[in-house]
Amino acid sequence: MTQGFLAPSARLSSYFLPVLKENPAEAQIVSHRLMLRAGLVRQAVAGIYSWLPLGYRVLKKIEQIVREEQDRAFAHELLMPTLQPAELWRESGRYDDYGKEMLRIKDRHERDLLYGPTNEELITAIVRAEVRSYKQLPLTLYHIQWKFRDEVRPRFGVMRGREFLMKDAYSFGLDYAQARHAYNQMFVAYLRTFARMGLKAIPMRAATGPIGGDLSHEFIILAETGESEVFCHRDLLALDPLSSGVDYRRDLDPVIAPYTALYAATDEKHDAATCPVPAEQLLHTRGIEVGHIFYFGTKYSKPLGAKVAGPKGEDMFLEMGSYGIGVSRLVGGIIEASHDAAGIVWPEAVAPFKVGLVNLKPDDAQVTAAAEDLAAKLTARGVEVLIDDGDERAGAKFATMDLIGLPWQATVGPRGVKAGTVEVKNRRDGARQELSVEAAVNRLAG
Amino acid sequence: MTQGFLAPSARLSSYFLPVLKENPAEAQIVSHRLMLRAGLVRQAVAGIYSWLPLGYRVLKKIEQIVREEQDRAFAHELLMPTLQPAELWRESGRYDDYGKEMLRIKDRHERDLLYGPTNEELITAIVRAEVRSYKQLPLTLYHIQWKFRDEVRPRFGVMRGREFLMKDAYSFGLDYAQARHAYNQMFVAYLRTFARMGLKAIPMRAATGPIGGDLSHEFIILAETGESEVFCHRDLLALDPLSSGVDYRRDLDPVIAPYTALYAATDEKHDAATCPVPAEQLLHTRGIEVGHIFYFGTKYSKPLGAKVAGPKGEDMFLEMGSYGIGVSRLVGGIIEASHDAAGIVWPEAVAPFKVGLVNLKPDDAQVTAAAEDLAAKLTARGVEVLIDDGDERAGAKFATMDLIGLPWQATVGPRGVKAGTVEVKNRRDGARQELSVEAAVNRLAG
Repeated sequence: MTQGFLAPSARLSSYFLPVLKENPAEAQIVSHRLMLRAGLVRQAVAGIYSWLPLGYRVLKKIEQIVREEQDRAFAHELLMPTLQPAELWRESGRYDDYGKEMLRIKDRHERDLLYGPTNEELITAIVRAEVRSYKQLPLTLYHIQWKFRDEVRPRFGVMRGREFLMKDAYSFGLDYAQARHAYNQMFVAYLRTFARMGLKAIPMRAATGPIGGDLSHEFIILAETGESEVFCHRDLLALDPLSSGVDYRRDLDPVIAPYTALYAATDEKHDAATCPVPAEQLLHTRGIEVGHIFYFGTKYSKPLGAKVAGPKGEDMFLEMGSYGIGVSRLVGGIIEASHDAAGIVWPEAVAPFKVGLVNLKPDDAQVTAAAEDLAAKLTARGVEVLIDDGDERAGAKFATMDLIGLPWQATVGPRGVKAGTVEVKNRRDGARQELSVEAAVNRLAG
Repeated sequence: MTQGFLAPSARLSSYFLPVLKENPAEAQIVSHRLMLRAGLVRQAVAGIYSWLPLGYRVLKKIEQIVREEQDRAFAHELLMPTLQPAELWRESGRYDDYGKEMLRIKDRHERDLLYGPTNEELITAIVRAEVRSYKQLPLTLYHIQWKFRDEVRPRFGVMRGREFLMKDAYSFGLDYAQARHAYNQMFVAYLRTFARMGLKAIPMRAATGPIGGDLSHEFIILAETGESEVFCHRDLLALDPLSSGVDYRRDLDPVIAPYTALYAATDEKHDAATCPVPAEQLLHTRGIEVGHIFYFGTKYSKPLGAKVAGPKGEDMFLEMGSYGIGVSRLVGGIIEASHDAAGIVWPEAVAPFKVGLVNLKPDDAQVTAAAEDLAAKLTARGVEVLIDDGDERAGAKFATMDLIGLPWQATVGPRGVKAGTVEVKNRRDGARQELSVEAAVNRLAG
């Protein structure tokens, strides 16, 4: 269910899809170039982007996959604000630590606010005020909200922007066992989330950085253009994605064991001298971090005083973890992992529309009637369609369709209308077929 | 289609729904009191709220109704960032005008940013860069994004918060006719949007304030606790809500004429001396502004230089309008319009769940099996269910259900299980019925 909440179709003649024929000079990496060229985003100011209609749809589809897999793992969605009181960060001791990446703000009454770069403090404050008993635990809460980190040199488009959309979950448990189970739930949810987006994401032991704690994995998608150097056992690539049948209530150690048993490390953690993997089985490549999970125990609950009454009435500080997915960053990451010389190649689950329907002759009443008929049949079957009903020449239309990378193209023109056929092209492999209208609908709705 | 994107069910025993038995002292109006008591929101700092899981669901449902009706009216969704460059507001001349309500920010490089209170400047900058020809017009774009207005005294909960969620649409036309048609499209979309939420919203001629322009309507829902005094012809209340069959491409003057023909004014615009409505037909009451639409011509396009080549190649400045709906404010507004002594009474379209399923004896295996069976049958039919599987006494459970205001309550207890029945209660009228399980499912899924 990632469809149904966005407009089911659009027509290029009245849509807002500004494509660029040339590569913009400011874009250094392929995803940034393609996001500008395909009219997905425009920069408002350094590191801050507007998501144009096509890009917005991709963002929302990624967000919805993340949401569904969080819900499945028994996390509950809420929404914290973008701005937070500085006071809470003084309580945790991070207000001064965080440095210039934190955007500090004074309101009209000279009170200190900040644009949240993450939400450990605020969620802990919410939970400490409302959760009093161990019976209310375990509890995992998440939200999908814009964050701000004032990068000194924002670049690579949405891959390293300043205002970015993140899913961040926070788990609260009574003890290590509950916290570790929550960690495992998110570990599994992340494997499923990225697999649904058509990505191969490898969990790697990671440094904990400013979040703190002593157990942490980064989820890294492999892409030659990635920012990080990574080393992993080749067998990790061959592991099957997890099915939807995982029972998140059960012990998940056996489920994640195949992933944690095999060596995988970013270059920060990798040490050639001690790496146990024989050279011929070690994959050395590059990747993009798209998720990061942390167990950090009582690092925040203690300074903030978040505790509950335990089974014997004793005060117990909450055992916590936090779990991030870079939602807006994933749009760039998916493009880095899935494009070719002609443009983007969207995995179907995150494509802005499933089908691009090219009307080769919009001024021909018969052709247009056939194109409209096909569009109506597809939308009736729940297929999202972008109809190119504009007056550009055929070559330009096909180039735009390849650039924006919808999974399927369906072309309706005078020759096909006479023969009663539609040309259907798969964007990924380029395979074309002439199909009857009925067969085309069945193929595209399949 | 407002369902399917949120988790289909939840269980109170593991959910995060902190209800308050007492009225919080800080809340002066009923919606604020009920939003705190029913666990919908918690304040992070003055005028800035976290939306807890139940409140978040209401917010998303309202947002989705707004989205669907915008899409139907040929508006295209995009997403602009929360932060904007001050530069654009200097171009329009509003940077200094806006006063202390605008939250001004300096980033690490001492560049001036601001947290957008509205988006006329940014959207005009996007359109001026991409739209070059009259053939690309008309165009209406909208987004649903958090805004910030630094109210000097934030109060009334989300009704007058500082960080708030707004839908704002912007129309771009070649001339007055196109601009006026876009205005009418939004007028009609607003009537439908509020009607779908179970609200009677009256369009009233309004002052244009800081947005400017010379044609403007506020959409006001009637509520005795409302902030504004309003005066309107009683016949406005009797007008039928618009059906979904409106064709937004056709002339909409006749569609809106019944609304604009009858007198309606806020007290700013009302003048008893010249009011044409006889006293016995004039309704004098209070209301809450939930939408505001503006036509303002070239007020922004001229200073920002947003123009296209017209049919004869001549430069033409874009004719614009803007159209807001207070999405987060609506949550409070709906409660003001729909509550009773026991709590909230959600209209079905925006209810966080449709059914509250009370398991009276969670420690009785037979009762629990029956409750689980009913929940499974309901979710299989697409009904969203909140299951109270906690161990409070029956009275407390029913009080919580009334407080949170789900449209239907279904009670499963030992007596009913023996008889093979479920008690179904309608929250609004309080009517109760003992129904067979099958009849209950049909009633609740209907």
